[in-house]
Amino acid sequence: MNKVEHIGIAVSDIKIAGDIYEKLLNTTVYKTERVEQEGVETAFLQTGPNKIELLQATHEDSAIAKFIAKKGEGIHHIAFDVDDIEAEMQRLKQEGFVLLSDKPKLGADNKLVCFVHPKSANGVLVELCQSVDNR
Amino acid sequence: MNKVEHIGIAVSDIKIAGDIYEKLLNTTVYKTERVEQEGVETAFLQTGPNKIELLQATHEDSAIAKFIAKKGEGIHHIAFDVDDIEAEMQRLKQEGFVLLSDKPKLGADNKLVCFVHPKSANGVLVELCQSVDNR
Repeated sequence: MNKVEHIGIAVSDIKIAGDIYEKLLNTTVYKTERVEQEGVETAFLQTGPNKIELLQATHEDSAIAKFIAKKGEGIHHIAFDVDDIEAEMQRLKQEGFVLLSDKPKLGADNKLVCFVHPKSANGVLVELCQSVDNR
Repeated sequence: MNKVEHIGIAVSDIKIAGDIYEKLLNTTVYKTERVEQEGVETAFLQTGPNKIELLQATHEDSAIAKFIAKKGEGIHHIAFDVDDIEAEMQRLKQEGFVLLSDKPKLGADNKLVCFVHPKSANGVLVELCQSVDNR
């Protein structure tokens, strides 16, 4: 695992949250992206080598809508940058972690991603991500 | 704000969680520290330029004990590295954020810290931190 690639934050209104995080981090939202298959609208802010990814649900069956209904707005996941996602998935499986997919999926920000079940990691939803450009 | 200095994770048993995060991040806990005034035992792991701080309560009135009782184990806060904590606190107050202390406090890892109320930041407990060595 390399750096924290981003921290995903579930929000009800991405425009309002974007304004708040622009003030908090003293920077601007540099990209927004809709990821249809995940049912999310995303907005990214950079802070040093790391990113904050704001996530708003696009429909009520989205994982983000369910998260907010259950827990309210807040931190949804931590994503770690990896050099070789398949190798890292294999390593974690051997260590006993439960992965949420057998193969990497294409996520936001041109990344191949795989999630680790929060029960494996003390309640934390962990994402592995590798830039498609780094393959 | 500079990089994500660390992500704080509330755990019930810091030894068990330490073993899990060592496997997850493929590294070792490099430091443990008890912070009496916060009622926490901490363990740190490094991942690239960022740290994971595991937090176990040392008594049942600790904020971490209350967090786990209410929400279960999971991500407790995000800490951002700042160059000048007093200046950053002043800037955030002017932007309308609610700070949890008027002055920085001495936290774990030889840091001056100040927390921002989660209601100010979409349910996220944000910590500002500045190394005492950088003053």
